[in-house]
Amino acid sequence: MSTITNHQWRLAARPVGRIKETDYTFGEEALPELRDGQVRVRVDYLSLDPANRGWLNEGGSYMAEIPLGGLMPAMGVGTVEESRNPAFKQGDLVQGLPGWQEYLTSDGNGLQKLPQLGLDPTAFLGLFGHIGLTAYFGLLDIGKPKQGETLVVSAAAGAVGSIVGQIGKIMGCRVVGIAGNDEKCAWIKNELGFDEAINYKNGSVYENLKKACPKGIDIYFENVGGEILEAVLALVNNFARIPLCGLISQYNATKAPTGPSNFVNLLVRRVHLQGFIVIDYLPRATEGITKLMEWYQQGKIKYRVDVVEGLEQAPRAVNKLFDGTNQGKLILKVSK
Amino acid sequence: MSTITNHQWRLAARPVGRIKETDYTFGEEALPELRDGQVRVRVDYLSLDPANRGWLNEGGSYMAEIPLGGLMPAMGVGTVEESRNPAFKQGDLVQGLPGWQEYLTSDGNGLQKLPQLGLDPTAFLGLFGHIGLTAYFGLLDIGKPKQGETLVVSAAAGAVGSIVGQIGKIMGCRVVGIAGNDEKCAWIKNELGFDEAINYKNGSVYENLKKACPKGIDIYFENVGGEILEAVLALVNNFARIPLCGLISQYNATKAPTGPSNFVNLLVRRVHLQGFIVIDYLPRATEGITKLMEWYQQGKIKYRVDVVEGLEQAPRAVNKLFDGTNQGKLILKVSK
Repeated sequence: MSTITNHQWRLAARPVGRIKETDYTFGEEALPELRDGQVRVRVDYLSLDPANRGWLNEGGSYMAEIPLGGLMPAMGVGTVEESRNPAFKQGDLVQGLPGWQEYLTSDGNGLQKLPQLGLDPTAFLGLFGHIGLTAYFGLLDIGKPKQGETLVVSAAAGAVGSIVGQIGKIMGCRVVGIAGNDEKCAWIKNELGFDEAINYKNGSVYENLKKACPKGIDIYFENVGGEILEAVLALVNNFARIPLCGLISQYNATKAPTGPSNFVNLLVRRVHLQGFIVIDYLPRATEGITKLMEWYQQGKIKYRVDVVEGLEQAPRAVNKLFDGTNQGKLILKVSK
Repeated sequence: MSTITNHQWRLAARPVGRIKETDYTFGEEALPELRDGQVRVRVDYLSLDPANRGWLNEGGSYMAEIPLGGLMPAMGVGTVEESRNPAFKQGDLVQGLPGWQEYLTSDGNGLQKLPQLGLDPTAFLGLFGHIGLTAYFGLLDIGKPKQGETLVVSAAAGAVGSIVGQIGKIMGCRVVGIAGNDEKCAWIKNELGFDEAINYKNGSVYENLKKACPKGIDIYFENVGGEILEAVLALVNNFARIPLCGLISQYNATKAPTGPSNFVNLLVRRVHLQGFIVIDYLPRATEGITKLMEWYQQGKIKYRVDVVEGLEQAPRAVNKLFDGTNQGKLILKVSK
């Protein structure tokens, strides 16, 4: 066979603040023949997530530290092009952590075959993947929503937030979403059925939240941190729950951010705040996916994806998440 | 009968920062005859607690706001001197929320008779009262200690902290206490059996904690906040638990304190942080008191009280908590 050329993005420098293209090098390598037990996956789509930023830091947050020169990790879906591993055959649709590259050569560890359900493969990086599971377990396991309670979601038009709000509606909550522009607010309110939507760039978040939550806040699904967290902590009810999913406002910080000045409210209002990462829930993935599938088929959950084409776009595309210019789950289309 | 004169401390101004004597007025009133159903309690001892400071704020934290001119609330034990309520008789030892005064006139609501166990009555304001229950439920219900885990306690020589650490030892934890002087450190280590004691005024809390917790921190029983919380959050293990019991470093703050700059660690290390107030656990008080009594009788839990004499001392005495000059549970002796 002809030699395959694989393009890759490797880490050149730890970003200070915002990710810059010069923090990476775009290189190519010729792939050797497969050995016994190996499988070659053509990467079709990569998932770009706010958490990617934290992975780049020294110490590596909850992932192992990426060494300088190391491949930039990312979740993705792809198609088996060649297999010398009996568990996979050519044409299989698979999911894994291929990283920012065109081809993954794998011994099969960490690679899951995906069911052929007639869904667009990007769905497995969104509603029926880590995104849907993050929303599902974060809200239900930690948030424990009850009929009639008020749920506030930040980054509400984002991949996770938009699903959280819709599950909240299914659970009978009053759902208030916070997003960064009027188009997003209109989408979550008119298309997704949120009860209220607040544009945090428009007026006082605290005053607008107070108006939108006349009975206070029982659950706050936190994706953002900073000023929005402060406003929420001023309005939480006794025994509120805060699934702590993300703090995107801080990920590019170049000096230590300050925690919420009203931290004491966590005490006097007996708040349960719990950080979580979706990987902790993977043993229960089937439960979550089954339920999400059911709701999707009943038309109770909608989602949208924002697909950027071309591996070479990766370092620029990921910043859409921090600029808030993505509309739905941000996906990078790799294979042509 | 002769008329009884009752002395009282009433709130004159909301304290700004530290409590000053001029924030109160010391007054006297002649008590009228009891009506049917009423009971007159001579207040023997009052409990002075860090939480008292929060009660004084506008809005009143978790207690109803104290109006200006209102009696300063406080838990206490006393002796029934006269009763026109069939549930109480002269000489009964009772517990309630008498406030800073010499005599409580009550219809019996909120007044509990105490068992005659040969204990000093102050024990019911300490180990066998709200203090012991705070330690017991905060550590066991929220902290969920497991054999071999590392438990860190701040304000470790304080009323609650000293009991938390001893329960931690009973549960098989490595227990590290943080306190504010060498005498306190020696007491918790040599008398109470803590594994390590750190004087937070002596060197870097972070470095000293790191040394004392070679396997990281699994449970942090939080009484203090501020710099100590930051140091702990830098060292918590994945899935750590933080019972949030107090934030005494902030109670006298005159401007909004900043939350921990490493708040994000709550997320990436999947920390469970839970604020709580002992009153939420009162329905389970018997369970806690029974267990604490058992451990006390087995010699596994020791405690000490710091008794200040004289109701007129109340506003000065309560500041011992914020100066850290109390040695054990701070109690005000009221009746002569």
